[in-house]
Parts: sequence; structure tokens; C-alpha cells
Amino acid sequence: MSYYFTKTVDLSFGDAIAKVTEDLKNEGFGILTEIDVKETLKKKLDVDFRPYKILGACNPPFAYKALQAEEKIGTMLPCNVIVQQKEDSVEVSAVDPMASMQAVQNPALAEIADKIQKKLKNVINNL
Amino acid sequence: MSYYFTKTVDLSFGDAIAKVTEDLKNEGFGILTEIDVKETLKKKLDVDFRPYKILGACNPPFAYKALQAEEKIGTMLPCNVIVQQKEDSVEVSAVDPMASMQAVQNPALAEIADKIQKKLKNVINNL
Repeated sequence: MSYYFTKTVDLSFGDAIAKVTEDLKNEGFGILTEIDVKETLKKKLDVDFRPYKILGACNPPFAYKALQAEEKIGTMLPCNVIVQQKEDSVEVSAVDPMASMQAVQNPALAEIADKIQKKLKNVINNL
Repeated sequence: MSYYFTKTVDLSFGDAIAKVTEDLKNEGFGILTEIDVKETLKKKLDVDFRPYKILGACNPPFAYKALQAEEKIGTMLPCNVIVQQKEDSVEVSAVDPMASMQAVQNPALAEIADKIQKKLKNVINNL
């Protein structure tokens, strides 16, 4: 089982971030957190890493339902979308919540994760 | 399989956040992101929720190793620690990375997740 959806896009690193942010918005997701991995690794370890960002995407109505169904699901929220610069392309990937949440034994949560999975899959496929 | 480590603490909500942040620091984790779930749900959906925070904890040397072993593991980083106000207590929980990352078929990553699991378990147990 794969744990992500991914697509190589014909966009610059910055444009890929802008595009996926807009497409996530159209599916009801806001970006709540943003980690600049390259900058963080430079600052903390003084190592060079390729441009790589982790965007924490949250669909509030679904997050609310998930938290009501499973009170500790915050340990797995928000859903991450990553944008990374590869050698001569830019790649965008989203976590598959059905994979990351497979250890959670809760049918009500699985239903929500399934809906979020479809939305994230759409966003990546349509980039 | 449970997907978290958890402990009820005899501290206020704010003190629990301060304590777990300090204890995480002693195990090499910095907090890279922070989501105030109560505030976010109020703002986005106008619903009332209990105090609930999601802290994104990152141990840079291990995160760097993980990213080198598995280039899309950013979809599952950082490791979340949540603090929530229950009826008459405060509860702190950390994700079990061995559970959330079980769909990732990569022995090198599993080794790193195992070490991070031990560190997070220690932090929660010793609160």
C-alpha cells in the first residue's frame, strides 16, 4: 500500500506551491502550517538540502467531525502536502490518510478519512 | 495496535504545554508548528471546542536521516504531540510513528521511526 499521491508538475517550485494551495482551497482545505525543510535543516544542522516544503492542509468541517469521532486524531492532523524540487522537475505529493490512519480502529473515522482521501487524490491528479 | 502514547497530567493546560515542550527539547525535539484547534474551529466554523493544541515536534538529525532514507516522508512529518483539556484533567498524547508510518515499506525508515518512538514514549511516560 502506498502512503501518498504524487505528481510531477511542469511548474517552478514557487508556482507549484501557489497552484496546489489554490487547488486545496477549492476542495475546502486551508494551509494551517508550513515548514521550509531546506531552511530548517540549514539552520539546525548546517546542511544543504533541496527546496522542500511541508504544507499542513486542513478541511475544517471534516477535521471537526474527525475530532468528534476520535479524540486523539489530532496526533495525525493536519494532512500534509509536500512540494519538492527534484533534479529537473518539481514534484507535489499528498499523504494518503487511509494509509497513515490505518492503525486507528474506528469505522466513523475511516469514513471521514475516505472522503478526505478522495479530495486529496483529486487535488494531486488535477494539478 | 494503538497509534499514540498518552498520559493524564496534574498540570494546567498551559503548564502542560510548557512542560512537554521542555521535555521534548531535552530529547532533541523542537516545536516547528503549533495549531490551536479550539481557536481554529471557532474562527472557521464558529463552533466551541475544548482547549486542544497540536504541536509539531521535530528532531532535526533524525528528520534529516528520514528524508534521506525516504524522500516523501515529509508527508508524515513532523511528529505530533497534542495537549487537550478533558473534563477535569489535562491529557498529553504523542503519535506513535511506528503506527502512522506502518504503510511505508522501508527498513531504513523503520529503524529511525523505532528510535523516535522510544524518545516520544519516554517524554510522555516521564511527564
